[in-house]
Amino acid sequence: MPALEIITIILFAVFAVYDYGKSHLTEKREYVFQDVHVMIFIGFGFLMTFLKRYGFSSVGINLLLAAFGLQWGLLTQGIWHLDDGKIKVSIFKIINADFSTATVLISFGAVLGKTSPVQLLIMTILEITIFSINEHLVATVLEANDVGASMIIHAYGAYFGLAVARVLYRPGLRNGHENDGSVYHSDLFAMIGTVFLWMFWPSFNSAIADPGFTQLTAVINTYLSLAACVLSAYAISSLVEHKGKLDMVHIQNATLAGGVAVGTCADMNIGPFGAMLIGLVAGIISTLGFKYLTPILASNLGIQDTCGVHNLHGMPGILGGLAGIVAVALGKKEGGNAAMQAAALASSLGFALVGGAITGLIMKLPFWGQPPDQNCFDDSIYWEVPEEEEENEESLAHGDHSKNKAEV
Amino acid sequence: MPALEIITIILFAVFAVYDYGKSHLTEKREYVFQDVHVMIFIGFGFLMTFLKRYGFSSVGINLLLAAFGLQWGLLTQGIWHLDDGKIKVSIFKIINADFSTATVLISFGAVLGKTSPVQLLIMTILEITIFSINEHLVATVLEANDVGASMIIHAYGAYFGLAVARVLYRPGLRNGHENDGSVYHSDLFAMIGTVFLWMFWPSFNSAIADPGFTQLTAVINTYLSLAACVLSAYAISSLVEHKGKLDMVHIQNATLAGGVAVGTCADMNIGPFGAMLIGLVAGIISTLGFKYLTPILASNLGIQDTCGVHNLHGMPGILGGLAGIVAVALGKKEGGNAAMQAAALASSLGFALVGGAITGLIMKLPFWGQPPDQNCFDDSIYWEVPEEEEENEESLAHGDHSKNKAEV
Amino acid sequence: MPALEIITIILFAVFAVYDYGKSHLTEKREYVFQDVHVMIFIGFGFLMTFLKRYGFSSVGINLLLAAFGLQWGLLTQGIWHLDDGKIKVSIFKIINADFSTATVLISFGAVLGKTSPVQLLIMTILEITIFSINEHLVATVLEANDVGASMIIHAYGAYFGLAVARVLYRPGLRNGHENDGSVYHSDLFAMIGTVFLWMFWPSFNSAIADPGFTQLTAVINTYLSLAACVLSAYAISSLVEHKGKLDMVHIQNATLAGGVAVGTCADMNIGPFGAMLIGLVAGIISTLGFKYLTPILASNLGIQDTCGVHNLHGMPGILGGLAGIVAVALGKKEGGNAAMQAAALASSLGFALVGGAITGLIMKLPFWGQPPDQNCFDDSIYWEVPEEEEENEESLAHGDHSKNKAEV
Repeated sequence: MPALEIITIILFAVFAVYDYGKSHLTEKREYVFQDVHVMIFIGFGFLMTFLKRYGFSSVGINLLLAAFGLQWGLLTQGIWHLDDGKIKVSIFKIINADFSTATVLISFGAVLGKTSPVQLLIMTILEITIFSINEHLVATVLEANDVGASMIIHAYGAYFGLAVARVLYRPGLRNGHENDGSVYHSDLFAMIGTVFLWMFWPSFNSAIADPGFTQLTAVINTYLSLAACVLSAYAISSLVEHKGKLDMVHIQNATLAGGVAVGTCADMNIGPFGAMLIGLVAGIISTLGFKYLTPILASNLGIQDTCGVHNLHGMPGILGGLAGIVAVALGKKEGGNAAMQAAALASSLGFALVGGAITGLIMKLPFWGQPPDQNCFDDSIYWEVPEEEEENEESLAHGDHSKNKAEV
Repeated sequence: MPALEIITIILFAVFAVYDYGKSHLTEKREYVFQDVHVMIFIGFGFLMTFLKRYGFSSVGINLLLAAFGLQWGLLTQGIWHLDDGKIKVSIFKIINADFSTATVLISFGAVLGKTSPVQLLIMTILEITIFSINEHLVATVLEANDVGASMIIHAYGAYFGLAVARVLYRPGLRNGHENDGSVYHSDLFAMIGTVFLWMFWPSFNSAIADPGFTQLTAVINTYLSLAACVLSAYAISSLVEHKGKLDMVHIQNATLAGGVAVGTCADMNIGPFGAMLIGLVAGIISTLGFKYLTPILASNLGIQDTCGVHNLHGMPGILGGLAGIVAVALGKKEGGNAAMQAAALASSLGFALVGGAITGLIMKLPFWGQPPDQNCFDDSIYWEVPEEEEENEESLAHGDHSKNKAEV
Repeated sequence: MPALEIITIILFAVFAVYDYGKSHLTEKREYVFQDVHVMIFIGFGFLMTFLKRYGFSSVGINLLLAAFGLQWGLLTQGIWHLDDGKIKVSIFKIINADFSTATVLISFGAVLGKTSPVQLLIMTILEITIFSINEHLVATVLEANDVGASMIIHAYGAYFGLAVARVLYRPGLRNGHENDGSVYHSDLFAMIGTVFLWMFWPSFNSAIADPGFTQLTAVINTYLSLAACVLSAYAISSLVEHKGKLDMVHIQNATLAGGVAVGTCADMNIGPFGAMLIGLVAGIISTLGFKYLTPILASNLGIQDTCGVHNLHGMPGILGGLAGIVAVALGKKEGGNAAMQAAALASSLGFALVGGAITGLIMKLPFWGQPPDQNCFDDSIYWEVPEEEEENEESLAHGDHSKNKAEV
């Protein structure tokens, strides 16, 4: 890590300067940047704290990867837009850097609990580098629309992570793991992540939209898509679960699928009605995915997707890409080209699968400190963990309560 | 639920379009909208997680009701302001939709733990519909001032909820319920809600104020009222409790009463001093209400008010309405009319009590899945709840620790 | 407390009016003010919830001190800038009032768990009063640069608190205290504080910068410094801990040192590279401080620094002051004067140590309800605490589970 940061700082010393161009100086960008920041650090970080013994890693490694990723993203994205040989750092660029880290945090969800911090830093470097190539291709070469990044962030991040998870398949976890589950309070911590993601998603999808009505449209479409998505996620969760009960996994995740799916056409003239329809469908397929598809992926395809990113980011991301193709074909975006939209989706999926597979192979090398099966989903392999309550309980059962407390 | 959302989407298809009018395009509104969003989804949601076994429902059903309520609120409020037969969706309108859901979430607090999701969705539909009528009456017909909505949101929401709670009175809970209480960590989760509500209340009270100095005045008055309120809430809590201790229930709730009470005159020229005085009084009556009034309401009037919304929203809301009458009478608001202010308060209370009673009767019909007394305040009737720690403990005491853990 | 608030309100009645001057009316200030608010109330409040039995006090007393402190800060800072004998309340002034409370909350960290609410209110009054004198001296007399307040808030607050802690030295806690530690979930609550502080620090450091490019520079420098700091904090934590594990104490705190240390020169033209270098160094010295210096301060100098504010605010604050001297000497700030920068640092440290020592002596008077050693770090001395799970467990072990539950 120290070497990595020192190299990064040297690269900044060589390339990075402030951007004194007038164009990036809008107040709007600045508070939107803070909203996106909250999604990256609180949203993704706490969303993954649902695991009963992996909260330190979820929020802590999330912080590590994001803090490194945003530096790396500034560099790898900046390389494509050098100005006098320099990367000019602006609010616009740091929003884009935050975006690039989102892909890593999505992939992190697929391999959560089964990878070491070093493995994940390697994934960060490679995934963001490849992201920057695909992003340049989609935005500058294909000139496709993807304002809320259904394709280049969500679908890309999900399938990249799933490809990594496939390569790192662990037969030893085929029958589950005692720590691969939640407890009551860990589910509440996760809801902090869910709700902050849900609330600030309109900022995410509108962050790089053209200011004015376009941006406003992106805010309203995202707001309505998410609202409709909540209803369908609750309805389907209750339909597929035993005795009509709700499942926290669905509520924590599928309620957000509407934000993913409306991303590509968030700034298009699809109408409030169109946005809600997209959200409704996203909530349905996401919940059904958690219930029926995730177990099949694990048992039949060897893809152990810890957080179910396929359901929250993968399928809704593809849905978003398809919705974008249709919307552009229907003329909902001035200057849009449906073929280019389709090419952007294909490109994002291709880079994700190939890039993820190669990255997975590198991560599989035996010297990165990958945890053994029995230590998966357990903070204590990488963190000093305070003596646990359950230990207390055990000793309680053995009758030596007071002694044990004194040692805590 | 699916039918409900589909009907809503159809209504949006018929009525809703984007608002391309210039007037609503201010950046200020957009970040204020996010602040209000945080209050609705994190603030109200986590404030109610204080119950030891009802956190999933508190934050989860809060999300469901708010997500549906904001769609419904857009429709029912929009109906009054059709433009070419259409509801033009703008940031201003979605702030107002968020506001309309606040009434429901306040009422939710009164019946928390004792109602089913279906009952609550029915309450959402009816309460927001009636709110829209009263809001139209107060704002457009009476032309009363209520910028921070002490009357039309807080007093209305509280007395609506209390009327519902009265109708749904449960004699079986007269002597309390083992789950109607907090544990250490649930009280900390609730403080997340309290603090976010406290911090963003200035945005709430200034969200629909005229931009410029009026809005600024609303921010400053709210800020000062809340600050003074904290001091009086702590002082009174310590005075009335055993050995001068503080009570978390008071701190979680009464510290916010200043935001409620200053609402109506937030944008008036009441002076920093006036705002602080209102906050001081609000903190006192709210804390005393929790200590002395809530038990009397429950035992003598059959009003079982789970979260004490009468103390946080009811009495402070009326105080706000009265302060508004006085302030307008003293000429603190240009063009204000004290009689109209009084009429607005009476109207809000009237609609709340009558509307709440009727809604309660509908909710009391026996086919909405109301939980039996023994399952009140317990997530496990509506949620898949992870095997609980205490269960583990029980089995621990029985000596079969390892077996139990493997099953989790 | 009631008397205190009443006196404060009277002072406001005499002195405070709204500011109708045009100059303070920018939207930027308003959302930045909310960001700073989040840091003060959520950030500091939850950062201190890491203690297993002191969460109510951490977040609750934090709210009390901040709510009072901001009123007091408005008065004591306003006194220096009277206009027609009045304090004109503006967003700019309430940001500064929030800032003044930050010094108290930093000092609170040094004495956390060992002081009564009354002692802390006394500290609030004195510390903010002295802060206002030093701030006036630094900003108006010396005309030194300290936009992000490394010197006048962080170094001042830390050394003030350490001086208080020295005076209040408790020999009885020399060998630790069973409650002076975390449990798993309390560490997660603390991470809420850490992450919100981390995210909104760019707003803190840029809040009072001149609008435009200066402010933008402060945002970007802080963002990059914090990002680099995370990497060095993780790297050093892993290097110094047993088996390369990470320590939550380091992650919760040292990851923020970059925000402190870049404060003074946040708005200077130090380049992205310079900002990152400052962050890198701050993360290193902060982590090393937690590991090696804090135990020495406690055992050799009698300074029991509960939260390690010396490592998060003290040393990084001095580093920030020194970096400012160097940057000004190198001409990175137009009109800067290195000697004045040095004088500002010396002044801040001097006021802190002398002011803290005197304040500590006053706080040591025996009638402020200071907790006895055995009740330190325990909410139950000042709060009604819900019957604890561990109690349940104890009774569980004794076999009377059901009876105990019914009483809860």
